[in-house]
Amino acid sequence: MIMHEKLGICGEKQHVIILLLIQVIVILLMGILMTYGPVARPNVQRNHSMYQDIHVMIWIGFGFLMTFLRKYGQSAVGLTFLVGAILVQVAMLCEGVFNIEKNGKAPLSLESLLSADVAVAAPLISMGALLGKTTYIQLIIMGVIELIVYTINKYIGEHHFVAVDAGDSMYVHAFGAYFGLAVSFMFGMKEKPKENSLEGSSYNSDIFAMVGTLFLWLFWPSFNSAALKGDEQHRAIINTLLSIAGSCVVSFAVSAFVSKQSKFNMVHVQNSTLAGGVAIGTAAGMMCEPVGSLMIGSAAGMISVLGYKYLTPLIQKHLRIHDTCGIHNLHGMPAILAGLFGALFAGLATEADYNDSLYEIFPARIPGLGPNLTEINENYRLSLKPGWNRSAGQQAAYQLLALAVTLAVAIVSGLITGFILRMPICGNIAEEQKFDDIVLWEFEDENVVCEISAVSKDGRSSRATEQISMGYI
Amino acid sequence: MIMHEKLGICGEKQHVIILLLIQVIVILLMGILMTYGPVARPNVQRNHSMYQDIHVMIWIGFGFLMTFLRKYGQSAVGLTFLVGAILVQVAMLCEGVFNIEKNGKAPLSLESLLSADVAVAAPLISMGALLGKTTYIQLIIMGVIELIVYTINKYIGEHHFVAVDAGDSMYVHAFGAYFGLAVSFMFGMKEKPKENSLEGSSYNSDIFAMVGTLFLWLFWPSFNSAALKGDEQHRAIINTLLSIAGSCVVSFAVSAFVSKQSKFNMVHVQNSTLAGGVAIGTAAGMMCEPVGSLMIGSAAGMISVLGYKYLTPLIQKHLRIHDTCGIHNLHGMPAILAGLFGALFAGLATEADYNDSLYEIFPARIPGLGPNLTEINENYRLSLKPGWNRSAGQQAAYQLLALAVTLAVAIVSGLITGFILRMPICGNIAEEQKFDDIVLWEFEDENVVCEISAVSKDGRSSRATEQISMGYI
Amino acid sequence: MIMHEKLGICGEKQHVIILLLIQVIVILLMGILMTYGPVARPNVQRNHSMYQDIHVMIWIGFGFLMTFLRKYGQSAVGLTFLVGAILVQVAMLCEGVFNIEKNGKAPLSLESLLSADVAVAAPLISMGALLGKTTYIQLIIMGVIELIVYTINKYIGEHHFVAVDAGDSMYVHAFGAYFGLAVSFMFGMKEKPKENSLEGSSYNSDIFAMVGTLFLWLFWPSFNSAALKGDEQHRAIINTLLSIAGSCVVSFAVSAFVSKQSKFNMVHVQNSTLAGGVAIGTAAGMMCEPVGSLMIGSAAGMISVLGYKYLTPLIQKHLRIHDTCGIHNLHGMPAILAGLFGALFAGLATEADYNDSLYEIFPARIPGLGPNLTEINENYRLSLKPGWNRSAGQQAAYQLLALAVTLAVAIVSGLITGFILRMPICGNIAEEQKFDDIVLWEFEDENVVCEISAVSKDGRSSRATEQISMGYI
Repeated sequence: MIMHEKLGICGEKQHVIILLLIQVIVILLMGILMTYGPVARPNVQRNHSMYQDIHVMIWIGFGFLMTFLRKYGQSAVGLTFLVGAILVQVAMLCEGVFNIEKNGKAPLSLESLLSADVAVAAPLISMGALLGKTTYIQLIIMGVIELIVYTINKYIGEHHFVAVDAGDSMYVHAFGAYFGLAVSFMFGMKEKPKENSLEGSSYNSDIFAMVGTLFLWLFWPSFNSAALKGDEQHRAIINTLLSIAGSCVVSFAVSAFVSKQSKFNMVHVQNSTLAGGVAIGTAAGMMCEPVGSLMIGSAAGMISVLGYKYLTPLIQKHLRIHDTCGIHNLHGMPAILAGLFGALFAGLATEADYNDSLYEIFPARIPGLGPNLTEINENYRLSLKPGWNRSAGQQAAYQLLALAVTLAVAIVSGLITGFILRMPICGNIAEEQKFDDIVLWEFEDENVVCEISAVSKDGRSSRATEQISMGYI
Repeated sequence: MIMHEKLGICGEKQHVIILLLIQVIVILLMGILMTYGPVARPNVQRNHSMYQDIHVMIWIGFGFLMTFLRKYGQSAVGLTFLVGAILVQVAMLCEGVFNIEKNGKAPLSLESLLSADVAVAAPLISMGALLGKTTYIQLIIMGVIELIVYTINKYIGEHHFVAVDAGDSMYVHAFGAYFGLAVSFMFGMKEKPKENSLEGSSYNSDIFAMVGTLFLWLFWPSFNSAALKGDEQHRAIINTLLSIAGSCVVSFAVSAFVSKQSKFNMVHVQNSTLAGGVAIGTAAGMMCEPVGSLMIGSAAGMISVLGYKYLTPLIQKHLRIHDTCGIHNLHGMPAILAGLFGALFAGLATEADYNDSLYEIFPARIPGLGPNLTEINENYRLSLKPGWNRSAGQQAAYQLLALAVTLAVAIVSGLITGFILRMPICGNIAEEQKFDDIVLWEFEDENVVCEISAVSKDGRSSRATEQISMGYI
Repeated sequence: MIMHEKLGICGEKQHVIILLLIQVIVILLMGILMTYGPVARPNVQRNHSMYQDIHVMIWIGFGFLMTFLRKYGQSAVGLTFLVGAILVQVAMLCEGVFNIEKNGKAPLSLESLLSADVAVAAPLISMGALLGKTTYIQLIIMGVIELIVYTINKYIGEHHFVAVDAGDSMYVHAFGAYFGLAVSFMFGMKEKPKENSLEGSSYNSDIFAMVGTLFLWLFWPSFNSAALKGDEQHRAIINTLLSIAGSCVVSFAVSAFVSKQSKFNMVHVQNSTLAGGVAIGTAAGMMCEPVGSLMIGSAAGMISVLGYKYLTPLIQKHLRIHDTCGIHNLHGMPAILAGLFGALFAGLATEADYNDSLYEIFPARIPGLGPNLTEINENYRLSLKPGWNRSAGQQAAYQLLALAVTLAVAIVSGLITGFILRMPICGNIAEEQKFDDIVLWEFEDENVVCEISAVSKDGRSSRATEQISMGYI
């Protein structure tokens, strides 16, 4: 009965058609737009190893981190797989549009693949807010729209504001988080978030989620440093390791501190331990010094746990924003912290501290146009207009501007996207179908009758006999 | 009772003796044959990182991919571990025999380890067809024979036909798949494959299998490009990523399309999503263009899902070939596609398109012998006889010849091997022992009585009280 | 009831305070002591990829290897995460103290991060002996003390004895194992180890543990070679792969050989398969020849399985040393073997065999001080005093001395540490709380009544109705 009602609603043939259509359009555009780029510069070797680290973070990291739900593990890892695979192609096309060369084609290289993986993180973060509450085609359409807006926003930030964001904390984490929360707000406007008995973990689902947490935690230094070079890259590895180590320790401590019985909470351990990777992202290549990195990571861990404990319930109650994975605590707030911290260290940056690397990190601070600047510029990963002659304070102001614009763009485009996703063609997950793998996956035919006796904390007892399929236990 | 019958049949002391004996022979041969080779050329650095990627694919990838069976997860990962560890040594010896130098020893280097890992993939693919139906010593003896034939076939293909196969789709995937299916055919001749209630997945076993799927999917670009260099390697990474992304998306779509309720099927998601990595393997380093890679990957994903849905049941019914993991759909058909696609692109290859790299990729097309060709040859990874002056069409014909010979050799040697494995000394798994970890592993002594009530789809109900050991639940 | 008693004992607010305090002290010391070092030499690229391999080994490898316990998986992976994250910072400080430069600061570099990861392995090995029997703050305090002693012992071994230990088998594995066993001895003196029904595995916990085993097994060649260069590094990769492959095969074989039903045992497969990585560690860069590596690995695998089967129960019974993960068999004995094997090959090392690399590997054998030796010295990873003019025999003697001193220091400091950990401020895990995640983690509120019927082997039957929380199943 329960099973029966659940069938045939989510999985509609028209969604399959849309999915195939999107793939066909991508193939056509790929044929029109893209060709091989030249082999990358000498640092291709380190790049390849770092690229693979990030590749693992996106699919194993995000995919398994979201398996924590009791009965949504297959969907978490499966949807990350599908959504990531289609969006990585879309991301290449979005970036390609900005890089079309004289021959009418945009070049694909190892660096494009890296950029595309990083870009895909944004919609996967947004997906964290919506996990268990959408059809797969809603997620894919959201992702396509999000990637278009993401690319434009990042282009403005990097090329017009020339704002530095080594680990993409503003462009990916803040953007992805507030975009996703805005979409969730639009869903909440339509229907108030309700309690759902499946919205919890099981013993093994929590351990699966730790696979995701650990691979994210271990490879985050690569994420924050992959696009950098030399001294800056070296610092980014060290800073990120220290920051994320700090957030790990402080998350455990604060988790036990706010617990009645001084115990750890798996949700905090799976998520808040990573907040230090986000919080150091913008300033990762700057002279934060080891102690600065540890402090920012520790602060992020603390804020993140407190967010899970106190802020998320309030946001759900008062703003009707349901946030399945708590992305506001893992990505949203730590990313704002990252933006502020980045502006602070940009404002403190002097030539004395950074030596030659000052103009590599902050090309907009190059004193003026001149023939000898070509070389400096060539070392930078983007083709920037040098010689804006900014002061440290001006650079800090542009950092803050990039943060503010990113937040505004994310929220506005997220609200519009949420509105679009409520259209009937995208389908809809009913309340009783939420957080349930049975909506998305074929299970084996042979059924088993399970008797489950549940006694809730307040003494209410219930006994249910449910007929569930074999592969489902 | 059930448990009692199952004991002591698979695990025989004589199998332990055979296993130890094989290891002793390997040690002796290693002492006679192998020594350290010189440190590899400058690309050792990228090689090491790619080598580790492939190392992870073989043991984590194959091992966990095969954990999808409800009660055979420990055997899947354990047998991959054991079989891989003994066969990687055998593979080094097999390759060593072809590389003995004047001092009577064959050199071992990082490149030998890489070749050995790639070689081990072939018997692990064959194992996929037989999973749950053999003793461990059957798998190991099969692997030893298979590696000997594999090495000879690959030598002929690379040195005599000079057929290109960057990702070893013909030499590893086609060979391993049809060898394994031929062995399974010989098993089926002896005893018709029956339905087995353990031949299905459980909720968690499907998630474990996704660990394998994802690591295979993520590192496949390294698999197809590790033995290449420069532009060719760069293209192989890009082509493989696009092809395998295409097969992922199309597998999901076709899986839902052929499903009554438009739902995804875990078997397809775990396996067919990878078909694009196989299908691009032969042509990975060629000028397929991004759009060509996406198309071949998409086609492979579609064929693979349709194979699981429609072809596998037919093959089992009419040819009595039981294929536990469906290797025909993941490796067999996509590898034939790869061979054909490789021949096509070899036939289209012109000097205008490839510039200097044409003769690096297709050394048999070098116009003629001459002193200035030494340099070109030195850049190629094998010591080939250059200057065969082939046309594009001839190269394409040799590609097809290599594919045909590989298929023929695999099937004939597989049939013979299957016959050998039916000898009593290799042991035998009885019908009621199949797909069951209890045959291979010691479980804890303390037993638990479990009551399981099962109601099958057609209304038959059964109630069983089984005494199972503690570690087994 | 049972649940109730278990609450509030382990998780005390004062432990949280101690944890936060340690993190604050680390931050302060990091501010006083550490700054960025110069970018490392040209081999930074390979270093980064090997560094990440080792990073994965520490947290995924150790963390998941210890998830084998039925109800302690979350603690295993969670405590490895926490303990590793705080101790990696402490390890940086410990090494930093020995590297303070003229400006009063110690430099942090990618190589420091690598050293710190390797150092953290020592306390995580010790933790294996104590798993499930301590509070988290006991583990952290143990780790801080252990890292201080570890750093001093390794400094003496490397700088005064100039003993070679490429894979840190003596300095990390032997030290960590005997330190941990000494701590466990002190715990056993206080209270005799008892049987505990939770000290076993479940079906899925054994598969989770295999994730740890495999990542350790796959990346061990990186562990043993990361600090080396050129030919020595190349040999270390090959030797380690062969040794650990040999220990894998022989562990399976011996496991089945000592089994009544000739079946494999998961404990052996999870642990003893790795013994070859430990046993080759000291001599990894030396001229062991492939056959020597295979033999040492095979011997280690055999000794390790026999240790699990026969020695561990004796040690527990007679010495009251309880060793949860059997670190004596995976790390202790194989590390002694490594030390002896390293001394043997150091004693056999001639200039004829090693060519120029003899003095790179054994700098103490450099004939005498001279201006031309500066260059040789610069190539070595540590700033050693060259020109001690040792003979091969003398070097072998110093290798044995380093082993003996390491064992003595580990045991004495372990006993003292065990005494300290018994102080009330560190807390204490009562017998009925052992090996139970419920002591450390918050589980969800909604409770479920489970009926478990158990029939033990000797016919005793028991039936329990336990009220357990939802996330706990």
